[in-house]
Formats: sequence, C-alpha cells, structure tokens
Amino acid sequence: MRRVAVIGVGVTKFGKHDRTSAELFAEAAGEAIRDADVTPSAIQALYYGNVTGGEGEKQLHMGPLAATLLGIPTIPTTRFENACATSHAAFRHAVMEIGAGVSDIVMVGGAERVLNIPTDAATEYFAYCSDASWEQSVGLTFPGVFALIARAHMDKHGTTEEQMAHVAVKNHRHGALNPKAQFQKAITVDMVLNSAYVADPLKLLDCCPFTDGGAALVLAAEEVARKRPRSVWVLGTQAASDTMFMHEKRDLSRVMATERAARAVYRQAGKTPVDVDVVELHDCFTIAEIVATEGLGFFEPGFGGAAAEKGWTGLGGKIPVNPSGGLKAKGHPIGATGAGQIAEITTQLRGEAGPRQVEGARTGLTHTLGGNTATVLVSLFGRG
Amino acid sequence: MRRVAVIGVGVTKFGKHDRTSAELFAEAAGEAIRDADVTPSAIQALYYGNVTGGEGEKQLHMGPLAATLLGIPTIPTTRFENACATSHAAFRHAVMEIGAGVSDIVMVGGAERVLNIPTDAATEYFAYCSDASWEQSVGLTFPGVFALIARAHMDKHGTTEEQMAHVAVKNHRHGALNPKAQFQKAITVDMVLNSAYVADPLKLLDCCPFTDGGAALVLAAEEVARKRPRSVWVLGTQAASDTMFMHEKRDLSRVMATERAARAVYRQAGKTPVDVDVVELHDCFTIAEIVATEGLGFFEPGFGGAAAEKGWTGLGGKIPVNPSGGLKAKGHPIGATGAGQIAEITTQLRGEAGPRQVEGARTGLTHTLGGNTATVLVSLFGRG
Repeated sequence: MRRVAVIGVGVTKFGKHDRTSAELFAEAAGEAIRDADVTPSAIQALYYGNVTGGEGEKQLHMGPLAATLLGIPTIPTTRFENACATSHAAFRHAVMEIGAGVSDIVMVGGAERVLNIPTDAATEYFAYCSDASWEQSVGLTFPGVFALIARAHMDKHGTTEEQMAHVAVKNHRHGALNPKAQFQKAITVDMVLNSAYVADPLKLLDCCPFTDGGAALVLAAEEVARKRPRSVWVLGTQAASDTMFMHEKRDLSRVMATERAARAVYRQAGKTPVDVDVVELHDCFTIAEIVATEGLGFFEPGFGGAAAEKGWTGLGGKIPVNPSGGLKAKGHPIGATGAGQIAEITTQLRGEAGPRQVEGARTGLTHTLGGNTATVLVSLFGRG
Repeated sequence: MRRVAVIGVGVTKFGKHDRTSAELFAEAAGEAIRDADVTPSAIQALYYGNVTGGEGEKQLHMGPLAATLLGIPTIPTTRFENACATSHAAFRHAVMEIGAGVSDIVMVGGAERVLNIPTDAATEYFAYCSDASWEQSVGLTFPGVFALIARAHMDKHGTTEEQMAHVAVKNHRHGALNPKAQFQKAITVDMVLNSAYVADPLKLLDCCPFTDGGAALVLAAEEVARKRPRSVWVLGTQAASDTMFMHEKRDLSRVMATERAARAVYRQAGKTPVDVDVVELHDCFTIAEIVATEGLGFFEPGFGGAAAEKGWTGLGGKIPVNPSGGLKAKGHPIGATGAGQIAEITTQLRGEAGPRQVEGARTGLTHTLGGNTATVLVSLFGRG
C-alpha cells in the first residue's frame, strides 16, 4: 500500500454556531484546502462524517451536499457514521483509497450541529448509538454507560473521583491555550467535585459538552506529500470493535476495542507506546481518558488515575494527552471529533501549536471511541 | 490494486417483516456466508449500509450491532449512508480495502426497516436525502423530484406515460419469477395508466414501494476467489456525484452522475455498453429506468422510452434490465438495495437465476442512484 500523509488541516471554532453542519464543514474544508495549498479541483474524493444530521437537521445524504458547498459537486462522496468515531473511520477508509492507488488527493472531515436542539433531544439522539433493544429502553444514556465503567474501575483499581477530576482540570488548562476550544477557562478539582452529579460517580464537570463544529483534512499520496515539508505521515491506522451489548462485556474497567486497535496499530507502524510523544484521545468523560491511557499502553491497568493525579499527562509531563483541551474542553462535535484530533496532532508534529505545543514531538497518536465502547479507531502519525 | 471477486451472496425476502433491520441483515449475511463456504471468523471487516435507522428504529452505530449479531463482534465495522445508493457505496469502499491489501475477505451489505412506521413518516425520512434548506421546505419529496425529471424527459424527447408504464409492466413480469420479490404479480399497461396520480405524470404504479429487507455479499481477494469456480469478478466500480440542488441542474432529462460514473467504469473495465449482457439498475420510478438506460449508454438520449415500449429491456430482449423485478417489483429496502442488485447480478453470471436467468450472461452491470440524483454508483462484473 502506498504511503499517505496529511498535507492540510482546518477546524472551526468549537461551540455554538448558527449555521448548518454542512456550512460548518465548508468553513473547515476551506481552511484545510488553503493550508494544503491545493486547488479545490485537485480533490478527487470526499469522505464525510456526521452522526445525528437526520435527527437534528432533517438532512441525510450529506456527502454531495458538502461537496456542492465546496464547489466540487461531481467528485465521489461518501457519508460515514460510526457514532463518535465517525470521522476517524472516514479517515481510515480514505487512507485505504489512496493506499490502493485509486486517488492521490482526498478530503476527509465531518461536522455536527446539536446546540440548535434541546439538550434532552440531543441526549436521546446520542443514545441511538447504543443498542435500541436492551439499553435505550432502560434509559441507559452515555453518562450512565461511563458511570458503569467508572464504578468498575474504582472497584477494581481504587480509582478515585479526585483522580477523575484531575483529568478535567488538566484538559481545561490545555483548552485555555487553544483559541478554537469551546471552553477556554481553567477549573479546579474542587469545582469538579462540587459540580452536580449527572450519573454517579460522574459529575457535570466530568462530562464533555454538546458542541457544534467542523473539521477537515487533506490527505495525499507519497508522490504529492514528499514535496511538501509540512507533511505529516500516517504511520498506521486501525479499527476494532467490541460487542454492542454492555451486558456481554466481561470487564467494564477495560475497553477491549481500544486494546485491540492499539496492538494492531503499534504492530503496523513498528512502534511501541514509549515512542509516542503526544496524544489526542477520546475523553468524552474523565474516566474514558483514564481507561484509554491504560488501553493504549501508556500506563499499566489501574495506574491511569494516579498518572492523571501526578500530572504525567499534562503539557510538560511524561506523555502529554489532549493538548487541544480534548473533548472535555475543546468540545465534542461528534461527527467532526476524529478529524479534529488528527488536525491537532498534525499541528503538533509540525511544531505549529503555539502555547500548547509539545516540544520536540515527532510521533503522535489519535484515539476515538464510538458509542458504548463498541467501536474504536487508533492512528499513529510521524514527521519525515 | 488486487483483483476482487464476489464469492457469496444472500438476500432476505423483500417486503414486510417484523424484525429489526440488523436482524434482517443477519439473515442475509448468514446466507451469504453459507453460499461463500467460509467460516464467519474468516471475515475480516464489515461494511454496513443503512439509511433511516436513526429515524425509524432509534438505532445509529449499526456496524458493531450487526457484527455482534453475526457472532464476530471484534472486527472493524463501518456504517455507510449515501441515500438509496448506500450499500453500493459500501461495496466500492470494501473493494478498495481488499484492493489495497488490507484484508482478504470482507462482508458488505445493508438492511432497512420502514414498514413499521406510517407512510407519511417514511416519506418524510426519505426526503431527508434531498436538501433540507431548499427542497424539503417546499414539500419536494421524491415522487416530486422524479415527476420533474419525467416532465423534462417528456418535453424534450416526447416520452409518453404509456412508455413509462411499460417499464412497470416489464419489472412486475420479472418480479413474478423471483421468489424473493415483494410483488410477484403481473400488471398491465392499463392498470398503470389507471392508477392514481402521485405526482403528475407519475402514478402509483410508476413508483417503487417502501420495503423491509436485507442483503449481503462476501468479497474476496484474487488469491481466495480463484479457487472457487462460482466467483464473480469485479471488473470496475465507480462513484460520481452531482450538485445537491435541483435548481442547479441544467438538464433534468439527464442524470449527470450516472453518465460520469458509467464513463469511468467502462474505462476502468475496458468495456463498452455493448459488452453488457444483464443489468440491475435503479428504477425507483419508471422514468428513472428510462433515463438510466440512456445514461448508461444502452440507448441514445430520448430512445429509452421507445426501447421499453418495444420490449428491448425485458428478459429475452436486446439488453435485459432488472430481471430481479427491480426496485419496482422486487422492492427497495434502501440500505440493502445496492447489495441486493449485486447479489442478483452475481446469481445471473453464475447461471443460477432459474426462470429469470439471462441465458449466457457473462458481463453484468449494477447502477444505484442516491437521493435527488446527487449520488450514483456503477459497477461491472464478469465471469472468469
């Protein structure tokens, strides 16, 4: 398979917008096209991610809509939906298109608009990503899913609510350095611990927000990318799944799909966790970051909470996690999240992340989780 | 890129079912796995198509759900949504995965369940595949879109309502030979002409039905497929788009995305329209079949109506179109339709289509159209 690189990235401000998701994507795509220094007509295919557009915007079939708004309405387009991992999945398939030699330059991205609808409706639509027969019917929305995971991790490893709070504090500290983040204000451990319970043991400030936003990437084959000094190479990209049913998962303190995808991507790239300099991972809830840092191999099982408390995952720490602010502070426009993470890692590996730059970062990892932990994608990126 | 073949196919009965779409898919997938004579654990990825599951079943994130029901919950899965072309798009991406050397054996398919919801709700959800800003808001549902196309074709070429009726009569005649078809009863030209107008000039019997159903394919790399004498080879697969906005289309009597995708696939396969022996194409409305037979190059523009009237597209005619009964009589479970068409062409090229067999068919074509003609996929298949 041919080598593939990211040659351009674009991200809207994350937060509340009064535009359609397709318009948000178009803004991000325009930025990515300028960043890549290509003409729009050079783009040969569009990989588009969106999750709840049917429910929230009465809009399916968004691929050609997005391409039409970009002024390139004749290219092949596909919409992807893999719950919150949607645009990371789109990215992996785009890498295969270039790898197979079908196209040389491809755009990948996604967008979501949910802040135009009531919070209870958004919560219901997000819950469609869990099983309709066994889980939605008993009211198991995502705070409940991750509360089960948190409780299992606390029971098995002694992880504390304070440790989880440290994840939120760290990601808000990072978000304050990111002008595109939804929340750019620091918070304290006490603020997290004193916020209202949403699903015990998770409190309001353990949870990422609902977010509008778009993100876009321009990918290119080696022949195109090697002429561009700011290219960031895809060293590996892998997906894995797990049973859709929470009641079939044997150990809720682990996310098996993360572990599977991580093993596969390290093998593909010839890397190990110690080679990774910077990480954007799926912190939809604080416990999700703790479990992911373990599943990705940065810490032994049960040590993720302590690592967060000790500051090992902050900027300047052993392994900086979510320098962008993560889903927690940067925001979580679900269809755009995976592409947004890749945009951040690209920016970091280029050394262009300004005050949130991880100094000397040469290898980066992105991790995106879908739904009730049934889908995970993990990718590795490098310079040169 | 490596060569790819279809080595197994499965299709549920199309029509009304009292099961979820994921369960319908599982039935089709089980049939495809048995037909391919592989073990489920040999399948390395699942490409899953569904359009309105969020709206109609409160179920997104269907990839891992489908894999879980198949007993292979750990493999990478992706859900695709490209309006009515959904599972044909999934197929094209799966061919790229195998072509790129990422996997050797992949499952593709899709399912839809809509007959559990009221017809007006289904009509609304389907309309989400047209533009929410300019088209849904003025009540332009799909019968209206294709009525505009029909009127343009009638004005430009003199195509008649009788000619359109002949398409319906032919596809019902074919459907009567297909035990999996939703409608297995012959109809007459008079019945079509005397049925109620839905959107002038289209009448009830010019329209395909709402349908529940599932379809699945097992694809394999050359190394696997060449040991299997019933393998049907993918000679080419292409996608093209057109502007999402009806008001931007310059000539409503043509579907430009069909013409673009057809040119590309003939070039890829080194074939021309006269090489094609059997066709499954997207007859969501009778006029759609007439326009498609022109866009695919079987007849000159304006001659599709006369060709239908003369019987050239029937079994035993110059170029048999929709021997399965097509969307019109076999039915149109939108997320399953593209995979279902490929299953039919595979069956035809194997010589296993029984009373609806196109004798001596060696090259087949599938064509699937999405939404307001903004997405089209065309693929070519052959024996040996």
